[in-house]
Amino acid sequence: MKKIKKINAAIIIIGNEILSGRTQDVNVVNISNWLNALGVKLEEVRIIPDVEKTIIKTVRETRKKFTYIFTTGGIGPTHDDITAKSIAKAFKVKYNYHPEAYKILKNYYEKGKFNVGRKKMAKMAKNASLIFNPSSAAPGFYIKNVYCLPGVPSILKSMLGGLNNKIVGGKKIISNSINLRTIESEISSPLEKVQNKYKNNVEIGSYPFFKQGRLGVSLVIRSDKLKLIEKCKKEIMFFVNKKKIKIIRNK
Amino acid sequence: MKKIKKINAAIIIIGNEILSGRTQDVNVVNISNWLNALGVKLEEVRIIPDVEKTIIKTVRETRKKFTYIFTTGGIGPTHDDITAKSIAKAFKVKYNYHPEAYKILKNYYEKGKFNVGRKKMAKMAKNASLIFNPSSAAPGFYIKNVYCLPGVPSILKSMLGGLNNKIVGGKKIISNSINLRTIESEISSPLEKVQNKYKNNVEIGSYPFFKQGRLGVSLVIRSDKLKLIEKCKKEIMFFVNKKKIKIIRNK
Repeated sequence: MKKIKKINAAIIIIGNEILSGRTQDVNVVNISNWLNALGVKLEEVRIIPDVEKTIIKTVRETRKKFTYIFTTGGIGPTHDDITAKSIAKAFKVKYNYHPEAYKILKNYYEKGKFNVGRKKMAKMAKNASLIFNPSSAAPGFYIKNVYCLPGVPSILKSMLGGLNNKIVGGKKIISNSINLRTIESEISSPLEKVQNKYKNNVEIGSYPFFKQGRLGVSLVIRSDKLKLIEKCKKEIMFFVNKKKIKIIRNK
Repeated sequence: MKKIKKINAAIIIIGNEILSGRTQDVNVVNISNWLNALGVKLEEVRIIPDVEKTIIKTVRETRKKFTYIFTTGGIGPTHDDITAKSIAKAFKVKYNYHPEAYKILKNYYEKGKFNVGRKKMAKMAKNASLIFNPSSAAPGFYIKNVYCLPGVPSILKSMLGGLNNKIVGGKKIISNSINLRTIESEISSPLEKVQNKYKNNVEIGSYPFFKQGRLGVSLVIRSDKLKLIEKCKKEIMFFVNKKKIKIIRNK
């Protein structure tokens, strides 16, 4: 699938609460769906702890491999929010107050309430640009190809729209699926033949499911070429009909 | 927190369906909670695509850094299930039928129904040991410190129990939490002081939440020493009471 891999991204989830099993991450699904619509393929996710040297190493390593890096978490006011400082160190630039962020936050809080923790949210890598936050005041920021977002899902989601014109995507990836009343091992052989035939341009995924007491398989066909998806589906339907497998959904 | 980092683990989630945003992963939470009970700290998660060279590279790299590696996904019967073969390549050992797995699967399927796809599920790295599957027949397997589990959450969960006596953990990590009716930036400064005082043995996490229309902060205190957690909590309660912050829950 080299052709649809041109513009890609990775997510770095920064947060002990995700690793400890305390919190269920939902940001990957939200960011991934937003990236799909922009024609950017998410190719890796790393979930790492709130440890400075791990953040620095992970950012340096991944930002060379992928077009865009998105980090989530660790940009709040408490001691365990160390993303902004770590990013500055990863880029070897100064970590200081961003004048615009400082102004936004100062205006947001009542007089006398702009304390040390709140001021911290205006500190970031020198020359970072802000990502507007329509939910709460504290902005995200980006430097080169690294975009830093908060961990709270509702706030993160509200900030993605503001990035639309900053992320330059490739061809939009189209996804079609066929849900069948069968089990994977009944169709693995003919399905593999179809995948092999289109291996350079189409990606076929096979996912078993268990719904309302019955087993099924969802076939997901992805490509940036709708015509190829349709050709692929035709060949899948050929063996599905031959094997008299019930089609639950085809769209 | 060096003292509770002795025995650690990483998870490698193998699956295009997670990266594409189609499927919400829940295996991280399940595995992490199971590991906590065994005294093993989850320190990294990587979500990677169904690409052989990526799987090989990720397994080789992570298995040197962590005590245990758990992979999820890609051990089914279809063309996109390439975990078993990739693991064999990562260890540079032969990929062939495991006699016991072959027997289990042959007995499970009716005569004449043990087709190519089903046979594939008995193929794995030479010298791999099986992980019993009480839900469906196809076993998981492990080789050295790499444990390969299926992606379907209910099946994965049912297989963890069988691994309890194979995973040797360290001291169990105890977790306490205090939920407060406040916002993070109100308490960041005194909280940081407490964390600094106990930085070698206790990890304090601060997590904002929004529930029933009101904001709150959950403080999570983790350590393998209950006494230190209690001392820490006492100091937190001191500033909480001083600031007249409402306590929603303390356990």
